[in-house]
Amino acid sequence: MTAQQLDSTGRLRHLLTLEGMPRPVLEGLLDQAQACHDSAIGRTTDRREVLAGTAVCTLFFEPSTRTRSSFTLAAQRLGADVMSFDASTSSAKKGETDTDTLRNLEAMGVRGFVIRHPDDGAVARLAATVKPETCLLNAGDGRSGHPTQGLLDMLTIRQAKGTDFSALKVMIVGDVKHSRVARTDLHALRTLGAGEIRVCGPANLLPDDDTLAGCTVGDDLDAMIEGVDVLMMLRLQHERMSEGLVPSLEAYHARWGLNAERLRRAAPDAIVMHPGPINRGVEVTDEVADGPQSWILRQVANGVAVRMAALQAVLG
Amino acid sequence: MTAQQLDSTGRLRHLLTLEGMPRPVLEGLLDQAQACHDSAIGRTTDRREVLAGTAVCTLFFEPSTRTRSSFTLAAQRLGADVMSFDASTSSAKKGETDTDTLRNLEAMGVRGFVIRHPDDGAVARLAATVKPETCLLNAGDGRSGHPTQGLLDMLTIRQAKGTDFSALKVMIVGDVKHSRVARTDLHALRTLGAGEIRVCGPANLLPDDDTLAGCTVGDDLDAMIEGVDVLMMLRLQHERMSEGLVPSLEAYHARWGLNAERLRRAAPDAIVMHPGPINRGVEVTDEVADGPQSWILRQVANGVAVRMAALQAVLG
Amino acid sequence: MTAQQLDSTGRLRHLLTLEGMPRPVLEGLLDQAQACHDSAIGRTTDRREVLAGTAVCTLFFEPSTRTRSSFTLAAQRLGADVMSFDASTSSAKKGETDTDTLRNLEAMGVRGFVIRHPDDGAVARLAATVKPETCLLNAGDGRSGHPTQGLLDMLTIRQAKGTDFSALKVMIVGDVKHSRVARTDLHALRTLGAGEIRVCGPANLLPDDDTLAGCTVGDDLDAMIEGVDVLMMLRLQHERMSEGLVPSLEAYHARWGLNAERLRRAAPDAIVMHPGPINRGVEVTDEVADGPQSWILRQVANGVAVRMAALQAVLG
Repeated sequence: MTAQQLDSTGRLRHLLTLEGMPRPVLEGLLDQAQACHDSAIGRTTDRREVLAGTAVCTLFFEPSTRTRSSFTLAAQRLGADVMSFDASTSSAKKGETDTDTLRNLEAMGVRGFVIRHPDDGAVARLAATVKPETCLLNAGDGRSGHPTQGLLDMLTIRQAKGTDFSALKVMIVGDVKHSRVARTDLHALRTLGAGEIRVCGPANLLPDDDTLAGCTVGDDLDAMIEGVDVLMMLRLQHERMSEGLVPSLEAYHARWGLNAERLRRAAPDAIVMHPGPINRGVEVTDEVADGPQSWILRQVANGVAVRMAALQAVLG
Repeated sequence: MTAQQLDSTGRLRHLLTLEGMPRPVLEGLLDQAQACHDSAIGRTTDRREVLAGTAVCTLFFEPSTRTRSSFTLAAQRLGADVMSFDASTSSAKKGETDTDTLRNLEAMGVRGFVIRHPDDGAVARLAATVKPETCLLNAGDGRSGHPTQGLLDMLTIRQAKGTDFSALKVMIVGDVKHSRVARTDLHALRTLGAGEIRVCGPANLLPDDDTLAGCTVGDDLDAMIEGVDVLMMLRLQHERMSEGLVPSLEAYHARWGLNAERLRRAAPDAIVMHPGPINRGVEVTDEVADGPQSWILRQVANGVAVRMAALQAVLG
Repeated sequence: MTAQQLDSTGRLRHLLTLEGMPRPVLEGLLDQAQACHDSAIGRTTDRREVLAGTAVCTLFFEPSTRTRSSFTLAAQRLGADVMSFDASTSSAKKGETDTDTLRNLEAMGVRGFVIRHPDDGAVARLAATVKPETCLLNAGDGRSGHPTQGLLDMLTIRQAKGTDFSALKVMIVGDVKHSRVARTDLHALRTLGAGEIRVCGPANLLPDDDTLAGCTVGDDLDAMIEGVDVLMMLRLQHERMSEGLVPSLEAYHARWGLNAERLRRAAPDAIVMHPGPINRGVEVTDEVADGPQSWILRQVANGVAVRMAALQAVLG
């Protein structure tokens, strides 16, 4: 049994996935996030009342310091009491089920849960077990779900290219097969009506199911980059080497790494994105990562804004 | 040298143990906890001034994520600055004594310490070394002390059965020998005048000292459960298997696990309690754990209320 | 490229090192810290507005629970939102550079960073990469820098001996070669015009560069302690034994440990300091550590005051 993320009135009840999220809901979150964006940087005390007195717990069944930090900062800026619970090193080894861990923290009075989980669909499964006043936010589960990453990527594209995506050529480059970022971005890009979606990577790192339906797919980055407006470079996990899926970092970089010369073949005002952490010299060169077309750090800033908007939408 | 938990006027100075705590003090804490209970759930801002500006540190010489979380939420709800210090992975390996670790944090301005320690009586020993304005709360030490667990269990029984325990038949089931929960509950149940205390478990997991004085003791759960009002199931630590004290989880469950059929032999309105985390299918079946007679999650909620009351009593 | 810690107007921009810090700046920090000192102990709500709404992150590339705790308490007392990021167990193993980790957190809206790093000069190197509104505080890097330790040591000496250091005989005892505490204290003592600086320890644990320029250096503690006003005992890291640099703890203690008998040869009102954590029976005996001339816990209290002053100076 899995939960619905919208309640019967169409309001966001949990944030579970971008798959199937109605366009007005998705755009409403982006509008809210944009409004949070300015207040998210620097010293801010203006939104402290939004979640004052509300306990929010980051409940991580697999580690992710970076996503946890971004959610923590977002919740603090809204005035919440933030607690972190590292389930990967505590409850699990005591034989407790993930549902029991969640329901215990819920019984302690936590109202908002930011959950990272190794299993596909785990957050929706957990959401089906909670009380009406409890809200769950998916901070990444399995290979498919990472809605706040998708939202922050869309917010970044909007800031660079405007809200009409219909004329945009967007390309995702790298290990799409193992990437929840890519799957989430694909859902969001389709919902927002992106003009063309290209997917480029090693053939053995591209999914062979219907994930890429409607996309232009190939492995020749030099050819496919022509005229692209938005370049979404995926992180290459180091374990792909030990698994034998990629011969070497150098070989990967030679064919699918982005350097300044390749970038010049894209549209003149193309932007470069990456979910981080970057492997410099693998997915992108220093020159590109730190260059004027890089929006990578703006993605990070947008991450806090998007998480503020999501927390406010479900808990506010 | 160990400290007294009451000052010369009879006020609670530290929370060290329920052993020997006068009945009016214990009942006063339960009354306070009941008052905190309603405000402990959901969004609360009404008690933020109680410990505003007071630094509270959870100082754990052995890990316990769950108890730490409950205390953290309680302290946050009272407006304290909460810091956690994991002494099991830091000071100890540098050769620092537990007293020095405590006194250093005290020198930094921490006024309230929530301490978990592997040694019996360690918190009382540490309490003898602190300054007059510093307060210690025992979050579990050795095999004997876990006062907030005892308080939350008593609060739960009160909510289910009223404040007069004299007609109650209470049964503790399982590994009493290694359980600080059981020892603490026994002190509290005696102080509150419980009508009858039964203790049931494998003979080799029952203490052979005077811990069970006055209790009805045995190993036949089916016979002993007749007419019981309150069932306190103890967690079976996995290490009991590797130590050879229990042949298998299945064998344990067959004789001392609580299933719906067994539960029907207890009083019709009997309640089932467990300190958590549950080993489902070992101490209790899913049907019992999630059934209408289970008060397990209400225990968890009461844990925050009791810890708020205790923090307020010593620091407020 | 490394950053300057003073801006063009002479104001403190980052806190990187005490080496070369102008005397008025250093004394200004000590004056501020003294003002924070009283309010740093016990319950305090009077400075909560100083950093309200400002996000401060403790970013540690090597572990140090104690320094992190002191900074955390200081930042909480100033009303900051405090987050901790343990880079030694997260980003680094994902192949992210320290600069990228820092700039990511900066992009999330963190304005103040408290950084511990294994490499000499790392914090100054990192400071050269941040935005104008971002401030870095060195919580220890490599063998050389630990400015807040130096400041708290100077504040302690001031409280005991007054602000004029010109008549003071100060002695540093122990493993100066590997000690950032010693190097930092030497810079500060020279800047503040200490009358005489003596350095005593095993010959193979004293630096052979110009670190000790101007100091009286030797290995005979009994002789050198005569008339000393301030004794700064250094911690002996346990790895010095495994490295073969010290034959045994007992042998070290016999020659360079401070006991009550040796202490009587110093000036009658000499004070004993130690950066902690103490190895009791190695650097100092219990009698000395807990005796009336020990200012060790006052150093710890001063640590919070100094960190409040530093945070306020750069971020306030």
